[in-house]
Amino acid sequence: MKLLRFGEPGKERPGLLDSQQQIRDLSSVVSDIDGDSLSPDSIARIKACDIATLPVVSNAQRIGACVNRVGKFICIGLNYVDHCEETGQAVPAEPVVFMKATSAITGPNDGVVKPRGSDKLDWEVEMGIVIGREASYVDEADAAEYIAGYCVVHDVSERSFQLERGGQWDKGKGCDTFGPIGPYLVTADELENPLDLGIWLSVNGKMYQNSSTKNMVFGPAKLVSYLSQFMSLQPGDIISTGTPPGVGLGQTPPVYLNVGDKISLGVAGLGEQTQTVLPSP
Amino acid sequence: MKLLRFGEPGKERPGLLDSQQQIRDLSSVVSDIDGDSLSPDSIARIKACDIATLPVVSNAQRIGACVNRVGKFICIGLNYVDHCEETGQAVPAEPVVFMKATSAITGPNDGVVKPRGSDKLDWEVEMGIVIGREASYVDEADAAEYIAGYCVVHDVSERSFQLERGGQWDKGKGCDTFGPIGPYLVTADELENPLDLGIWLSVNGKMYQNSSTKNMVFGPAKLVSYLSQFMSLQPGDIISTGTPPGVGLGQTPPVYLNVGDKISLGVAGLGEQTQTVLPSP
Repeated sequence: MKLLRFGEPGKERPGLLDSQQQIRDLSSVVSDIDGDSLSPDSIARIKACDIATLPVVSNAQRIGACVNRVGKFICIGLNYVDHCEETGQAVPAEPVVFMKATSAITGPNDGVVKPRGSDKLDWEVEMGIVIGREASYVDEADAAEYIAGYCVVHDVSERSFQLERGGQWDKGKGCDTFGPIGPYLVTADELENPLDLGIWLSVNGKMYQNSSTKNMVFGPAKLVSYLSQFMSLQPGDIISTGTPPGVGLGQTPPVYLNVGDKISLGVAGLGEQTQTVLPSP
Repeated sequence: MKLLRFGEPGKERPGLLDSQQQIRDLSSVVSDIDGDSLSPDSIARIKACDIATLPVVSNAQRIGACVNRVGKFICIGLNYVDHCEETGQAVPAEPVVFMKATSAITGPNDGVVKPRGSDKLDWEVEMGIVIGREASYVDEADAAEYIAGYCVVHDVSERSFQLERGGQWDKGKGCDTFGPIGPYLVTADELENPLDLGIWLSVNGKMYQNSSTKNMVFGPAKLVSYLSQFMSLQPGDIISTGTPPGVGLGQTPPVYLNVGDKISLGVAGLGEQTQTVLPSP
C-alpha cells in the first residue's frame, strides 16, 4: 500500500493511493498516518478494508509529509561508497549517525527555504525507513519486522552551517523545510528489494545524482539493528539512509542552490518530489 | 510557579508545587505540562487560578519528566570555560549544537540504564531552557519572551559512543534514560537571574561538579536567539545549556559510572534529581 497525507499544512488527513493513482480518504479507518497507525495491527486493518468503498478525493490536493508526529528523524552519513569519495572522507567502519530537527519536516512539494546567511545550500536525495514497532537491541536478522515502510526523504543541507560552524553537523541539517518526506510511504511488503532501487535528483533539469540503493554501505536491516543498540526506535521514527554521489559540495567547482532553483528527486517505486527554493521570510 | 508531572510512566498528570512543597493536581486547568500549556496565555491562566482550591496529592508519587511531548531536545556543547579546559578543547567562538533523542527523556529520579557495550558512562548536570512560544530569527534582546521556564537536565553521556564511534556526538547522547528532566519547571518570572545559580553533581556522595551558571560562555538569551537563526523553536522544546567542569572524562584518571552508582544533581532554585545506575535489560 501507498499511504499518504493530504490537505493544507497542519490539517492533513490520512489517505491511500489506489491502483489507479487516485487518492482515497482513509479517515474512516485511521485518524492519521503516524506511529499509532503504522503498527503491524493497524496496517493489517487498513489492508483488510475494501478500498473501493473509500471516498475518492481530488488529486489536486496538497500532499503533506507522509508521516505525522515523527519522534526522531535520524540520519546516516557517508552511506554510499562513492559519496564518501566525493566528500573526501573514508568509507566509515560503522554507520555515522546524526539527527535532523523534526520541525524541519515538510510536504514533498512544499518549497525549500534558503535560510538567512546561507551561501552553501545543498541537496541530498535519500531513501527513508519508517519504523512500525518499538525496536531495542534488535538483531539484524529480525530487523525487517520493525520496518513499516519506506519513503523518499530530501536531506536538505546547508554546508557552511554543517561543516564550518563548530564541528557537529546538526546545525546545518535541521533548518525549517530541510526535511521534505513523501509523497507516500510504501509499506514494506510491497517493496521487493529496498536495496535495488534507482535513486536520483536533478536541479533545474540537470541530473546531479543518479545511482542505486544497491551502492549503500549499510542496508536497512543493518541500520535498524545498529541504531537499536544505541537508542530505542519508536513507531513513526524515520531513518534516512544517506545519499549517493552528486551533491553540490562534490561538484568541481561546488554548485549550491539559489532562490528560484527547481529540484526534482525520487526513488524508484517510492515516488517523486519537486521543490522550488524560496527566500527566507 | 513550579510545574511538574506526577504519576506512573506514560500516565503522568499535570501538577504544581505550592509554597508548602505540596503537589496540587492541575488536571482541571490544563491537560498536561507540554508545549500547549506553556504558552504565555496558558501560564497566565494557571497563575490566575486559586491554588488553595486545587486538590493536594501525595508527595510519595513518582515524579515524571516535567515537560511532555518535547519536540526537540537541543544541547549546547562546551559552554562553560573551565569545562572546555578539562576536555582539552578551545572555548568555542559560537555555540556548539547537537541533539539528544527525545526518547531518552525520563523522570528526574528514574534510573539511568547503562547500555550494552558501555564502558564510559558519564554525567553532565545542566540547566535546561523550556521554550514557550514559537521562535524564529529572534533578536537576543527579545529572547526572554520566548522562554517559558527553566529546569534541571541530566545530559547523561556515553563517551566511547560519543567520541570513538564516528565523530558525530548524537550516538552517545540519546540512549534510553539519558535525559532525566525535572523535578519541575520553574516559570521564567520566578527566576531572578538564570545566570547566577549554583549547579552541582555528586556520585556516591562525592562532589564532582560544583560551579555556577555565571560561568557559562553563552547565556540563555544568546542561545535562544542563536538557535532561532538555524531552526524555529516550538513550545515545549528544551535547550540544555551545557555542563560545568567535573565530568568523569575530565578526572585523572577518568572515572565512569557503574551499575549501582548513585548520582545526585541540582541547580539552585530548580530542584534536585537522584538516579541509580541500572543494568541494561
